[in-house]
Amino acid sequence: MSIQNQQTKLNIGLFGFGVVGEGLYKVLEQTPTLNAQIKKVCIKHPEKKRNAPPELFTIDPDLLLQDEEINVIVELIDDSEAAYYIVSTALKNKKAVVSANKKLIAEHLEELISLQQHFQTPFLYESAACASIPVIRNLEEYYDNDLLHGISGIVNGSTNYILTKVSEENISFEDALVQAQIEGFAESNPALDIEGTDAVNKLTILLAHAYGIVTPPQDIVHTGIQNLHAGDAVFAREKGYEIKLIAQARKLDNGKIAAFVLPQFVHKDSQLYNVRNEYNGVIIESSLADKQFFYGKGAGSFPTASAVLSDLSALRYNYRYEYKKLLYQKPSQLTNDFFLRVYVSFDGLFHVPHEKFERIEEWSSSDKRCHVTGIIRFSRLLDASWWKRKNTSLVVYPDAFVDKVALKQDVEENVLSLV
Amino acid sequence: MSIQNQQTKLNIGLFGFGVVGEGLYKVLEQTPTLNAQIKKVCIKHPEKKRNAPPELFTIDPDLLLQDEEINVIVELIDDSEAAYYIVSTALKNKKAVVSANKKLIAEHLEELISLQQHFQTPFLYESAACASIPVIRNLEEYYDNDLLHGISGIVNGSTNYILTKVSEENISFEDALVQAQIEGFAESNPALDIEGTDAVNKLTILLAHAYGIVTPPQDIVHTGIQNLHAGDAVFAREKGYEIKLIAQARKLDNGKIAAFVLPQFVHKDSQLYNVRNEYNGVIIESSLADKQFFYGKGAGSFPTASAVLSDLSALRYNYRYEYKKLLYQKPSQLTNDFFLRVYVSFDGLFHVPHEKFERIEEWSSSDKRCHVTGIIRFSRLLDASWWKRKNTSLVVYPDAFVDKVALKQDVEENVLSLV
Repeated sequence: MSIQNQQTKLNIGLFGFGVVGEGLYKVLEQTPTLNAQIKKVCIKHPEKKRNAPPELFTIDPDLLLQDEEINVIVELIDDSEAAYYIVSTALKNKKAVVSANKKLIAEHLEELISLQQHFQTPFLYESAACASIPVIRNLEEYYDNDLLHGISGIVNGSTNYILTKVSEENISFEDALVQAQIEGFAESNPALDIEGTDAVNKLTILLAHAYGIVTPPQDIVHTGIQNLHAGDAVFAREKGYEIKLIAQARKLDNGKIAAFVLPQFVHKDSQLYNVRNEYNGVIIESSLADKQFFYGKGAGSFPTASAVLSDLSALRYNYRYEYKKLLYQKPSQLTNDFFLRVYVSFDGLFHVPHEKFERIEEWSSSDKRCHVTGIIRFSRLLDASWWKRKNTSLVVYPDAFVDKVALKQDVEENVLSLV
Repeated sequence: MSIQNQQTKLNIGLFGFGVVGEGLYKVLEQTPTLNAQIKKVCIKHPEKKRNAPPELFTIDPDLLLQDEEINVIVELIDDSEAAYYIVSTALKNKKAVVSANKKLIAEHLEELISLQQHFQTPFLYESAACASIPVIRNLEEYYDNDLLHGISGIVNGSTNYILTKVSEENISFEDALVQAQIEGFAESNPALDIEGTDAVNKLTILLAHAYGIVTPPQDIVHTGIQNLHAGDAVFAREKGYEIKLIAQARKLDNGKIAAFVLPQFVHKDSQLYNVRNEYNGVIIESSLADKQFFYGKGAGSFPTASAVLSDLSALRYNYRYEYKKLLYQKPSQLTNDFFLRVYVSFDGLFHVPHEKFERIEEWSSSDKRCHVTGIIRFSRLLDASWWKRKNTSLVVYPDAFVDKVALKQDVEENVLSLV
């Protein structure tokens, strides 16, 4: 009846030997106490010089995937299609897997969960959401479904770096993007970051662990910072806000879950206000722990290696994600049936259709730029053709959720101020 | 060779049925998926009305400690001596233990670690340091000894509540303490909090998991906020600082560890600056993850219950602390041989001996209050008779560690400005 522990010795097959992979190799070499060693590394470019013995390397994935002595596959490659083959084959061969590939995981989550269950094999990916911040593990272990009010966070470092520069140095979004690229905080093709794809991939992963919701990332309303306008930054500054790209999921009064990635005005009382440059930050609100905030580097080789190491450490005591919110209880449901207070700005030449709003609270126009503040039915955003078009930007207000009952009353009392 | 998981069913014997204990009972009742149930509850006052079936309760500890069906003891009582009997007996009987009792753990840590090792039985106490903030688990799993530069944090909610009130409402320390007691954030006998005992107990626990250092709390230089003076708050405000009570441990260049609990000026760029009221916050700095920050409620029934639940959840997959920094490597050593930049203020009537300082950088005196800023050899603080006496307060500067070599050079060049 007593509880004992037996540590598993980890014999690792590593895919990819970039900065994270090489860093991991070095740390494991220097830390025998981790009881983990890399047996073989599969690489794509054998001609490159590597800082490790040549006999460690191969270009044949099967040498790792079919090796019965290897009990853990660590997947650290760029190509998400190849990564899918590696991860799924490893799980089928009953090898534990650690991956940092958020795109792979978000896009194949349902199938990857099935594989874990079917083959009773752990698949850990703490580094895939906010890298060094242990948010997945904490959501798995700390918050029961019924107790979790919401999660909201800055989960993409590149866009946060750009927003910080715009705010603090008063430069244009375009100049800030160039600066981010020079500093190495944005890819040369930054679309994945800038347009919110990376953030929605991470939200997809967090939704599974927070609420047991598994949904394709493209079904979640999201955008990035690509359409933000200099005037929006001025507006935010005047009101004492910072604009941040926020990924969030929130349990509504009816028990359903609202989830989206949108730019948001953040008030200085929020912990997210102070998340600057390439850092990430996540607020978790729950009945028991109240409000918690986790902050750290969300990308980069060392923070990623740190999270991979922690997954390996967890495998040593046979840890695995349970997805209990998905499997054991009535799973939560996503909904688009709620109301948000938003700000929309657009060039004078264009018009945001008034009929999209339930109520318009503020309106300002000039030759150069117009903006509207109002209450919008969230489902209107499913049609992105109007609010995601070039020269139109949408920013969510702080405490943006508007109570439907109160709104309805207003409408019935004819105080709806549609212009 | 594959890694599998077998969940252990938890059959719990609970000691204490206060707000945390009762909350835990309810959550477990409502959450069958946790695969944990409370079999028996040992209480001290059987005459009290309880919101649970009477047959659940007993006043006989042995009914729990000797019950072979019970595999987990959860200890949530006030009395740290009784708690010691319960915890040590349970471990000897090979029952896993979860406790929230920081005083018990800090004062008996060495022995409790031995018991865990000898009987190969897990003892988890996430709630004992910063309650809802998963700092122990993260230190255990995320940071190898060599990679951890330092940890510093606000670990006591009562004192932070008082400091926030003094700063934001410009009231005296005495009035703020009364307000904290009314609001329930300070005990009626607040000495444990106010004098830094609670904070140093928590630092003792964190030192073991961060650096493998096990030392009695009374051997760590510490104080609280009992001697802070209204003039110190004014000084801090003028410089743009907040005064916070900071527990910290830092790896010095020679590999040894500096550790203390002292009031500190915190600059607004620090994440700790924004930790207000009863919240706790901990910054962890490491090579890989860089700077991480964890924030949440550090006390109270629900945050404590949340951490106890997470420990129970961890026991289900046979998790245990490994204390690997203590056991497997050359353990780190504490040192008092370093220099700090500090501010000391005192009543005009008293005199801070100049000879305590290596260098005095600033000096101000008036009829009411004098203060000195200077570099001090930390070992001078081992004699607390001068700096801890009533009417004398000591506050550490931000980035307070002073390089010994640079200081020595100054001295040799006779620029030492001892007055």
